Amino acid sequence: MFTNTTRVEIQFGDCDPAGIVYYPNYFRFFDNATAGMLSAAFGMHKRNWLQHYGIAGIPMVDTGARFIRPSSFGDLVEIKSEITELGRSSFSVQHSLFKDGELAIEAHEKRVWVVRDDQGGIRSAPLPDQVRQLLSAEAESAERTEND
Amino acid sequence: MFTNTTRVEIQFGDCDPAGIVYYPNYFRFFDNATAGMLSAAFGMHKRNWLQHYGIAGIPMVDTGARFIRPSSFGDLVEIKSEITELGRSSFSVQHSLFKDGELAIEAHEKRVWVVRDDQGGIRSAPLPDQVRQLLSAEAESAERTEND
Amino acid sequence: MFTNTTRVEIQFGDCDPAGIVYYPNYFRFFDNATAGMLSAAFGMHKRNWLQHYGIAGIPMVDTGARFIRPSSFGDLVEIKSEITELGRSSFSVQHSLFKDGELAIEAHEKRVWVVRDDQGGIRSAPLPDQVRQLLSAEAESAERTEND
Amino acid sequence: MFTNTTRVEIQFGDCDPAGIVYYPNYFRFFDNATAGMLSAAFGMHKRNWLQHYGIAGIPMVDTGARFIRPSSFGDLVEIKSEITELGRSSFSVQHSLFKDGELAIEAHEKRVWVVRDDQGGIRSAPLPDQVRQLLSAEAESAERTEND
Repeated sequence: MFTNTTRVEIQFGDCDPAGIVYYPNYFRFFDNATAGMLSAAFGMHKRNWLQHYGIAGIPMVDTGARFIRPSSFGDLVEIKSEITELGRSSFSVQHSLFKDGELAIEAHEKRVWVVRDDQGGIRSAPLPDQVRQLLSAEAESAERTEND
Repeated sequence: MFTNTTRVEIQFGDCDPAGIVYYPNYFRFFDNATAGMLSAAFGMHKRNWLQHYGIAGIPMVDTGARFIRPSSFGDLVEIKSEITELGRSSFSVQHSLFKDGELAIEAHEKRVWVVRDDQGGIRSAPLPDQVRQLLSAEAESAERTEND
Repeated sequence: MFTNTTRVEIQFGDCDPAGIVYYPNYFRFFDNATAGMLSAAFGMHKRNWLQHYGIAGIPMVDTGARFIRPSSFGDLVEIKSEITELGRSSFSVQHSLFKDGELAIEAHEKRVWVVRDDQGGIRSAPLPDQVRQLLSAEAESAERTEND
Repeated sequence: MFTNTTRVEIQFGDCDPAGIVYYPNYFRFFDNATAGMLSAAFGMHKRNWLQHYGIAGIPMVDTGARFIRPSSFGDLVEIKSEITELGRSSFSVQHSLFKDGELAIEAHEKRVWVVRDDQGGIRSAPLPDQVRQLLSAEAESAERTEND
């Protein structure tokens, strides 16, 4: 299915007193990686595809990460993100973070495709056919993000 | 004018590889301190007074800080916030952060009272008389915040 | 096993443009909750028990969370943390985050007890008997944290 | 004096419920911009020049910012950083953040060149002649940072 690679340069402020990335920041990187992947798949920036598909967002319902190797200030890491499952109104992503070519973190996430309901709340909605098609394409991209 | 004291316990993740608070986090603490101060002055939580006064927010227009002493993980610091100026549609705050009773940071900020305009943008609006009165009161409070 | 409850008041800056907590911040809350739990179990602050037990830290090796209900600015949430497993040189924690008494997030984590090795790196070390005893106690505490 | 331009793409998680960048994050961007500028001037990455010059860091002693225009998710902003003053053991930087070519934020900062003292603390040290020379050069660079 669709695969995208982004790069993150670890900044001083991303790290904690142990000198390694404070792990909650990795979830920030992964959130950006998913936004970048969908932007690459949809051919437009996230702030545009939210509107284009008329959705309220893609809230996280489940995520997890296994930390194999730490990263530090100045490391340039690569995040390979891949769609692993397309549900009726949800999709799953696997992120593999590489440092110097070696796997450093494996993470997964499941998100829901949601729209506004009449009461101003949100409810899940089926993935549009076009989205399903774009995300299931056996395509690889490497959208180089400017930022983490 | 109105004065309020909040307390912050420095967390591990607030600190950088040098083992001291990563300075952008202090502005997060000060933002919370201002929200806490206005909540104490207005007698209701920020999410309520935004609605109560019909405003879109109190965006920052100018802020600065002088760093005298660093703080580290586990330090319990005190932030004394004081209204220093009430403009027509703006107000200024001074924050003094104390560690072990000694002044560690002096910061100031100027914010604007804004409402939504007809086009969905924002525009400054005069401080309501009641707000002006509450913020100019020679009162001291010590709203103990639960968290940042 | 040992259980501890902490409270977090959601701040404006914890939330994203959707108006709900930006999910990476929950991992920051959980990291603080684990630090608070061990401090309650050990009867001393984290910056002291790191030194007391001669360890370099308790790095995360695996974590995950299931998001059931969102939280927003001003919400006061409760995190109940519980030791769920004690390995030879690792331990696991379950965090249950409640909002208005209802379960909003379930999270788990596994951390390793590490010491500095001769080369300045880190290596896992057996949990000391005292630590094992304190963490397996059927005790409940409610260390009220001041801040995140 | 030395001038460097970096670029930052605003991420979803950089923004607050008002839909604009949460202002403490700008200080994170500026911290990264200063690190990038010195790396460009010194011709090596920050984690190398700290060691190369035998210093403990360049702690902030004074900073401030004036916010003219907000930025939002997806904006690509440019930060032009310029050395404005070289003291005996300190230096000052001015950051100008542009959005769509228009000035959005003006910020300044003063930092100290510090080394470890015998007691493990830090003390200011004179800027080395080479550093003084490199930072006072009338050079412009545009180190494209990978990340914010």
